[in-house]
Order: sequence, then C-alpha cells, then structure tokens
Amino acid sequence: MDAPIGVFDSGLGGLTVLREIEDALPSEDLIYVGDTARVPYGIKSPETVTRYSKEICDFLVQKGVKAIVVACNTSSALALETLRPMYSLPLLGVLEPGAQAAVDATKSQAIGVIGTEGTIKSQGYAHAIRQRLPQAKVVGRACPLFVPLVEEGWARHEVTRQVAEIYLGEWRGNGIDTLILGCTHYPVLRGLIQEVLPGVTLVDSARETAKALQALLAEKGLLGKGEKRGTRRFFTTDAPQKLTELAARFLGHELGPVEMTNLGAD
Amino acid sequence: MDAPIGVFDSGLGGLTVLREIEDALPSEDLIYVGDTARVPYGIKSPETVTRYSKEICDFLVQKGVKAIVVACNTSSALALETLRPMYSLPLLGVLEPGAQAAVDATKSQAIGVIGTEGTIKSQGYAHAIRQRLPQAKVVGRACPLFVPLVEEGWARHEVTRQVAEIYLGEWRGNGIDTLILGCTHYPVLRGLIQEVLPGVTLVDSARETAKALQALLAEKGLLGKGEKRGTRRFFTTDAPQKLTELAARFLGHELGPVEMTNLGAD
Repeated sequence: MDAPIGVFDSGLGGLTVLREIEDALPSEDLIYVGDTARVPYGIKSPETVTRYSKEICDFLVQKGVKAIVVACNTSSALALETLRPMYSLPLLGVLEPGAQAAVDATKSQAIGVIGTEGTIKSQGYAHAIRQRLPQAKVVGRACPLFVPLVEEGWARHEVTRQVAEIYLGEWRGNGIDTLILGCTHYPVLRGLIQEVLPGVTLVDSARETAKALQALLAEKGLLGKGEKRGTRRFFTTDAPQKLTELAARFLGHELGPVEMTNLGAD
Repeated sequence: MDAPIGVFDSGLGGLTVLREIEDALPSEDLIYVGDTARVPYGIKSPETVTRYSKEICDFLVQKGVKAIVVACNTSSALALETLRPMYSLPLLGVLEPGAQAAVDATKSQAIGVIGTEGTIKSQGYAHAIRQRLPQAKVVGRACPLFVPLVEEGWARHEVTRQVAEIYLGEWRGNGIDTLILGCTHYPVLRGLIQEVLPGVTLVDSARETAKALQALLAEKGLLGKGEKRGTRRFFTTDAPQKLTELAARFLGHELGPVEMTNLGAD
C-alpha cells in the first residue's frame, strides 16, 4: 500500500523520530507536521494537548496517511489513549516502544524516566513499564530546562552539565540501571547525561519507535511496496523561516521545503 | 466611564503589569487574559503573534473594555502597530513607556535592551528609543533561558547567575548606563542582573506602562469615576489548574478565580 505515513510533534524534536523511520523504512513516503505555532506541549494541560493532537491527526487523515506516529512524548502520554478509538488507522506513540526497550535492557528492574512536566505527571511511562514488568521500580523526573538548553545550542555547555547534575545526580548509585530519555530533545544531551550517570543504559524512544512501526505495518499488511526512496513533506503551523538550522540538528541532514498550514482551521 | 480595562499577555508574566495598574488605578475594573494554551510568543513569527494578539483583542472588545494594555513585550514589538488601526479604542503597549523611561534615565546615551528573540529581532525598542533620542547607542540581546529559569523557580540560583554573566557580562564597562528589562519575566531577576551590571539603571516597563495608561485615560476622558476597589476577572486559554502558584509570583498576591476561554473560537 503506497499511502504515506504521518509523523507529528509539538515542534521539531520529532524529526529525531522521522530520521529513524527514514533509516528503517527508506522507501515509505513520510509527511511530518510540527506544531511550531503552539509549541511546547509539555507545560500544557491534557485537554489542550489532546485538542491540538486531534487537529493534527485530522489533518493527516485528510492527507491520506495509512498510519500516524505520535513522535511527541507529551502527546503520546496525554492524548494517545483518547485519540486511538477515534480513528480507523493505526496510531503509534513513543511511550510503549520506549518502555519495552527499557524493560528489555534493565537487570536491576529499577528504571528512571525523564521528560516534560506533562509526561512525568501523567505516569504514562511508569504505567507502560509496569504492564510489562509489574515488579519494576520506576522513578520519574521532569527536566524543564533541558529543551531550552538544547534550543540555545548549549548541548555540551558547562551550564548544561551543572543542570544535568542537579536534575539527575541524586540518582547515582540508587540502583537505576536504565534511563528513558522521554523527550525528543534529550538524545542531543546523551553524552552529558551519560557522564552524570555512568554505566546506566540510556534508552532513546526514537529508534525503538521506528522498529515498532515497521513491525506494526508488517502485521497490518501496510508496508510500502515501493523500491525507490520515499518522498517527504514537511508542514509547520508557524511560519517556516529560520526553522531549518534547528531542524538540521535533529534530522542530521538538510530539511527540504517546508509548507505552512493552519491545520484546516479556516 | 466605568467600562473595564483589558490587559493581556502570552502567559502569566503580564500579571506584573496588572499589579502596577492595580497600584496606580485601584478603582478601575480589570480583565486579564493569559494565552497559556499557546505560550510563549517570543520564539514565534510576527504573523502568528499578530494573529493571536488580534484574537485576544477581539475577545476583550466583546467584553466591553474601554482600553487595552498589551502587557506582552513580544506582542507590543511585533503586533501592536498592525493592530492599533483596527480598533477605535486606545491600545497601549509596554515598549514606548519603557523606551521613554530609559531615555529619561540615561546620561551616557548608551542603552541596553534584553528580551525574547522576537522582541530583539524586531528592533522595536531601538526604534522607540531613537525616535526620542536620535543619537542614542542601543544594543540588544535575546536571553532565551531567562524565562525558563524563572519558571523553574531559580531566580536566585547559581546557574542563573552564570547564565546572566554569559548573556550580559560582556556589556560591563562598555558605556551602557541603562538597561531595559524587555520581558515581563525579567524583573524577577532584577537582583541578579544588577550584580552582573553594577551601577546600571534597570528599567522595568511594567511601572512605566501603568503611569502611561493613567495619563492616556485622563487625556481621553476615560478614567473611572468609581471610589471603591475595582473588580478583577482572569481568563486563560489553557486549563487554569496549577497556574495559581506561578501567578502569585508575578502578582504578589493570590489570584482570584480563573475562567478558561477559547477566545470565541467556536
């Protein structure tokens, strides 16, 4: 089936997920939506995050997608369960693949989760982990400064190292052997987080989500039959100027042309 | 005339302006709108900021306000000039009062401005300063980490001191004797910024805007005739839960009941 796959995020961080999907499923056509006019989602209520996510899903359905990947951790945690029964096509979030990878990796059965305030408060990761490993000890921590530090370009900055130490230093030696990087921006801080928590396995949901998507499409008979490289379309809700620099940081290569959309609001 | 005054901001920072208006004009009725579902504005395009600001102004006009205070620096810089001719009631932003106060304060005729990316890029403060003092030297700097640091509650934190030093330390000894705190969150960092730039006069637009509002209402014959304390209504576009703690930080007293609005979108 040659319909495209929709991928969305509150902003550009979800391009890290798109990149993994490109690697895993190079011949699939992809449509990405970044809700840059309303970013961030992580500080907003479940009701508002669900409303925004539904508007984007409706837009993607109108574009004829065969599946939707919710690349935003906050939206996966706060909106996905409400949205899933509203659509006849498969919706895949980043929480369940991330939780599965953490359960596969842990030996101590003690797992840390970091994310936005919304993601951590929702307990979505803790729930998904305990479904797979009921005896798991899960500790969560919101790290609200990490996203602005990454967007400032300070991924290796001394200030960022100090913030990481303040947020995560207290977890050193508490038995956690696996940490879920539960926000699309955090893999950019991987090196620095590893320095604060040496020996801890860092789980990045992006790669796991791409693998889970491949399995899901295969199971549903929805894998593309094409042999050539798939097409890409990028939409943002704010004016696309100046996004390309930040986008390249997440995507690892130049972004193609970006279209602006109001998600069919008028 | 006993109609209320409308005050709006991208979020809650504009409550610092509301607080000064309460002090200057205690008997006026006030309606505050915080666009918490779409905050922040400082990283978004002029088109999007103008669209959001217009939706809020339309909402306030519908509520029967006699004047509108644009308490958001980014909106004042990016949207106000476009919006002003669209309404028959007076619109007052924070840029012109802040620029006037800086011009009144400077002796060296060298003025610094800090704000969001949108405010600094717009050159709005520089323009307003040079209209009043054509020979002024104006330097601007976006400080994108200041808002998240304030919202993290780190106003006196060592990390915040280092960030302030990185952003502003290079201005020490360069002749600037006046600095405009061009974002509603920055007055919370006043003590720390003063340590980085000792001897520099810090201008907080909030107080100046309240004074300018009083003068504007008097000139237009719009001052309230009431003697008792005015009423307050608070609206936010996201669910109001959990806002009260942050609000009290800006307002200096407890917030009353908060109503949620979709700005008449449906």
